[in-house]
Amino acid sequence: MSRALITDARPWGGPARDVRIVDGTIAEILPVGTPPQTGETVIDGRGRILLPSFADVHVHLDSTRIGLPFRPHTGTPGVWGMMLNDRANWRDAGVPIAERTTETLARMIAHGTTSVRSYAQVDVDAGLERLDGVLAAKDAHRDRATVEVIAFPQAGLLREEGSVELLEEAMRQGADVVGGIDPCMLDRDPVRHLDLVFGLAERYDAPIDIHLHEPDQLAKFSAELIVERTRALGMTGRVTISHGYGLGQLPREQLVPLLEQFAELDIAWATIAPSTPLPTLLLAEHGIRLGLGEDGQRDYWTPYGNADMLDRTWQMAFTNNFRRDEDIEHCVAVATVGGRSVLGTAPALNGRLDRPGVAEGDRADLQLVTGETVTSAVMDRLPDRTVLFGGAVVADGLELTGAA
Amino acid sequence: MSRALITDARPWGGPARDVRIVDGTIAEILPVGTPPQTGETVIDGRGRILLPSFADVHVHLDSTRIGLPFRPHTGTPGVWGMMLNDRANWRDAGVPIAERTTETLARMIAHGTTSVRSYAQVDVDAGLERLDGVLAAKDAHRDRATVEVIAFPQAGLLREEGSVELLEEAMRQGADVVGGIDPCMLDRDPVRHLDLVFGLAERYDAPIDIHLHEPDQLAKFSAELIVERTRALGMTGRVTISHGYGLGQLPREQLVPLLEQFAELDIAWATIAPSTPLPTLLLAEHGIRLGLGEDGQRDYWTPYGNADMLDRTWQMAFTNNFRRDEDIEHCVAVATVGGRSVLGTAPALNGRLDRPGVAEGDRADLQLVTGETVTSAVMDRLPDRTVLFGGAVVADGLELTGAA
Repeated sequence: MSRALITDARPWGGPARDVRIVDGTIAEILPVGTPPQTGETVIDGRGRILLPSFADVHVHLDSTRIGLPFRPHTGTPGVWGMMLNDRANWRDAGVPIAERTTETLARMIAHGTTSVRSYAQVDVDAGLERLDGVLAAKDAHRDRATVEVIAFPQAGLLREEGSVELLEEAMRQGADVVGGIDPCMLDRDPVRHLDLVFGLAERYDAPIDIHLHEPDQLAKFSAELIVERTRALGMTGRVTISHGYGLGQLPREQLVPLLEQFAELDIAWATIAPSTPLPTLLLAEHGIRLGLGEDGQRDYWTPYGNADMLDRTWQMAFTNNFRRDEDIEHCVAVATVGGRSVLGTAPALNGRLDRPGVAEGDRADLQLVTGETVTSAVMDRLPDRTVLFGGAVVADGLELTGAA
Repeated sequence: MSRALITDARPWGGPARDVRIVDGTIAEILPVGTPPQTGETVIDGRGRILLPSFADVHVHLDSTRIGLPFRPHTGTPGVWGMMLNDRANWRDAGVPIAERTTETLARMIAHGTTSVRSYAQVDVDAGLERLDGVLAAKDAHRDRATVEVIAFPQAGLLREEGSVELLEEAMRQGADVVGGIDPCMLDRDPVRHLDLVFGLAERYDAPIDIHLHEPDQLAKFSAELIVERTRALGMTGRVTISHGYGLGQLPREQLVPLLEQFAELDIAWATIAPSTPLPTLLLAEHGIRLGLGEDGQRDYWTPYGNADMLDRTWQMAFTNNFRRDEDIEHCVAVATVGGRSVLGTAPALNGRLDRPGVAEGDRADLQLVTGETVTSAVMDRLPDRTVLFGGAVVADGLELTGAA
């Protein structure tokens, strides 16, 4: 039975407490100064804020160039042009993909992320090579983070011969989630695209995650098709829409009925905090499971991204023009337990969260961050952090602890 | 005659050079390895990127709480509600305003800013107390930065008896620029408001800076009134519009004719890189002088802001969804020489800038930043920086050098 005692830590910025962890779970919230028990590892909170660790539920580990020489962006706008740019260049990094994914995941963990849902592009160019890369990172860090892998048809399913077979092979080889993308705009046959995605999900009893970059009424149409299939196939609670930029821009009178159907079918949403934000609080009012992710990081799609979900949380608060503590703390909740709810490892949330994830009975996936308040911690994004996974310290001061 | 040699520095990320500075001006760009001359101070560039130092042309030094205990945001939306919140609280910081302004300006300089245009709120509550605070910071750092002060009627000119007299007294007491704000929305009498502002500017031979938070057609109407007065009074080149959020959202066919008039009358624009950005490249195409600023920093208006214009430059690039080097470097140009052009200390710019501000003859207000390329420096915002003002090192590693 593993035991630890975090001393002098402030759950969600509240008064200092000691926190007892038994077998990877928060067992007791205690007064400061509680004597450690025999055999208990002591983790010095030093008055820092205790938060649930981050969940990044939308990251493309398989394209990362974090830590490699900086490469000027060469893509052209639009999904197909960006995909071709990535395809033309991703092998030229000089470092095998498994090393890149493993290094980037290490940095993510070091910055506080212990739950991850990553894409692995599966297409006629990469075959399963990128999937193998992400699976290697997952395995390398299996004692530091929970990683789900999405078999992701970035190039569509209908444009290139052999795409469907590869996606199915990816599911056989260990992918956890079936991906889909822009059923109208990319494959131009939404019914066939979605039938293939939902069919695979049924066959492999897997959840679904669909990238939706489509604009306004086209996004609404695709979302309606997704809703119809989720209902018809009994996939309640197993479908996530990623991005959904266009949905977020719909007039409220069109968006709300859609959100009501998402709530009914427990369709989750993953955002990357783009500069044009989703109506974040409206989603919370409708009880939509919402998680945050970092998308591509310094890769062939974008020069942005730094493996730091605290930075991304700042970005979410900023793009929403949030200023009040309750709103900025909501962003932290989305970036932590919100993401876990998308992954199904925390309960579905309903409305605003009241400082969740650090109560007795919660899994001890935690982080200590520096700040006077949760809001100031988000504003300052300081490096003095400690990260716990299942009650064990896995990173300290932005470095992994222990052997690789 | 003061002389310095910056060795091994990469102007705008290009090949390494030595840079000779004589009497505060870049005298020669030389090959790396140039032997220093007798009496020449050597500044080791260590392969870092050499850029012009930042110009922050829209900052509210007089409300800052940077470095003080974090205070949760209490304002209500809207300019008047936020002003009342500030008014109710700004004296309660526990530190005199002159200390706060001086400390925040120190941090700004330490992060690379050596040209500043700051607001000093002048109203019936503060009288000239906030102006005195900003003037004290200007004086304390006179050897490290150029500071212009805007006498700023944050509470309007027509709502509270005595406001106009105070603004005029501020100009007599050493303010450099006459401020104005939302001529329609706040004072509700745009002609009287603007006549007062332009009248004062004429009387004191001072430039004008007008905060414009007004939406769409109202912003357009106020801008037209500003244009008319600028033309009628021969104020070409002496008027800046700040924010202009609403103008930035106008349909292109309405915005372009306005930009053509701004160009004709050389009306400048200051932005703070809000999450809904201005059409930055369109402004450049029309030769509009555009500068960047940090607005209120961790004050009674907002919890955001950290005295780091490199962070704000990232924000400008992010909100514009810029990915290519040429676009991100344009943001750096706006944040440096763009701001100087607003202040009149650099030539007006026309179109995109070709790595300006580090050529022979340019004033040696410079910074060395860490990065492989200018874009990666913006992405990483690393702390290893050296800041020069008039050829002398004034900050290193985010700390001021020399005596206070």
